[in-house]
Amino acid sequence: MSGFNADPIKALVFDVFGTVVDWRASIIREGEALSAAKSLPLDWAALADAWRAGYQPAMQRARSGAIAWTNIDSLHRVILDELIPRFGLTSLTEAERDRLNRVWHRLDPWPDARMGLARLKSRYVISTLSNGNIALLVNMAKRAGLPWDCVLSAEIMKHYKPDPEVYQGAAQLLGVAPGEVLMVAAHPSDLRGAARAGLRTALVHRPLEYGPNPNGLPAPDALPDDRFDVVADDFVDLAHALGA
Amino acid sequence: MSGFNADPIKALVFDVFGTVVDWRASIIREGEALSAAKSLPLDWAALADAWRAGYQPAMQRARSGAIAWTNIDSLHRVILDELIPRFGLTSLTEAERDRLNRVWHRLDPWPDARMGLARLKSRYVISTLSNGNIALLVNMAKRAGLPWDCVLSAEIMKHYKPDPEVYQGAAQLLGVAPGEVLMVAAHPSDLRGAARAGLRTALVHRPLEYGPNPNGLPAPDALPDDRFDVVADDFVDLAHALGA
Repeated sequence: MSGFNADPIKALVFDVFGTVVDWRASIIREGEALSAAKSLPLDWAALADAWRAGYQPAMQRARSGAIAWTNIDSLHRVILDELIPRFGLTSLTEAERDRLNRVWHRLDPWPDARMGLARLKSRYVISTLSNGNIALLVNMAKRAGLPWDCVLSAEIMKHYKPDPEVYQGAAQLLGVAPGEVLMVAAHPSDLRGAARAGLRTALVHRPLEYGPNPNGLPAPDALPDDRFDVVADDFVDLAHALGA
Repeated sequence: MSGFNADPIKALVFDVFGTVVDWRASIIREGEALSAAKSLPLDWAALADAWRAGYQPAMQRARSGAIAWTNIDSLHRVILDELIPRFGLTSLTEAERDRLNRVWHRLDPWPDARMGLARLKSRYVISTLSNGNIALLVNMAKRAGLPWDCVLSAEIMKHYKPDPEVYQGAAQLLGVAPGEVLMVAAHPSDLRGAARAGLRTALVHRPLEYGPNPNGLPAPDALPDDRFDVVADDFVDLAHALGA
């Protein structure tokens, strides 16, 4: 972090699931309301974790060409359909399943997100750069008040992160060089992909992404020789680090 | 307009040049400042009109495959390069030409645009759907304070309006049916393209697009049997008509 010169940076692009929004607590919140309404008690934390765990393998099938390129709403639904019998949700109607699948459009931001983004927006172009599809990101931003200048998604490039096409395509669409873009994410693997594509990188710590006691859940995927241009505790801290 | 039911509408997509922003007055304003700074007097209204007149033929070359698909920044530059000798601007440096070409990123909105969009945004998803490229639209919105939920462009579909791929692609990316999208434009030809693709249509009158005395300039391209779902005098009137 020392010695990073933010002057050339023109645009910040953000990972969303886990970095901007707390997917796990949001799914638990909405799931528990559904359980109460339908008298269907179940472990929503376990369902949220299993749903999220299916995400990388599903994208890999789309990436490898094993299935046609598919957006995240559809991948989320394929995973959910596998979880429904396992979690005793077979009594849900099709409309209820569709609504549950779209819980990913209704995720709540981390407490610092809106304020940090507003500050960063005053100095930089701020955009999503998520594997989530455009409709999901637009609906989420509208509900949560996330003030994006632009909503970019892997859906546009028809590649999923960390494929280089996603990062390079974002820089090109924003009309700037890759080195003028700072990728912001809580996940080192995403930032490694961005760095390989020529972007600058900012790691934002989200220690609660997998809950307060993530027993055996995905550990931070940092490698011993990972280096990031900026490391911040949250988006307000990131704004401070970037002089915004 | 009578009998139009706005209830199914979920998203509004907007043509931008001429519909949201006053390209002609903006180019004249910035051009006259350039003329004063460089002691290069010229008729900026004529240059603006000639620049805009080159736009449809340039897109047609890209559409027909005569040239590779090219974004609007590049098409604007090709047209500008033809106008530079004709208007006595050959003393401009490359940096000055590039800056002049990007005047399209710095166009001012019509006086009602910001307020009308804010009202429409309270009820609908609002997005650009312009032939202008993403970077141009993002820079314009940031400078002018246009509160888009999403910035969509023909650049994403690699087709220019009025090709149906643009309108249908926008509905798909927004996660709604074509009939749930209202295309808003000042140009009947754009709205005809939208209607052919299954979208609903709103014509907004912009009688000053070609200036107060558009002698011989493009007349409104309405045809005798054009029908639009909504006709409005400006975006505030449109918000009123849609109950927003």
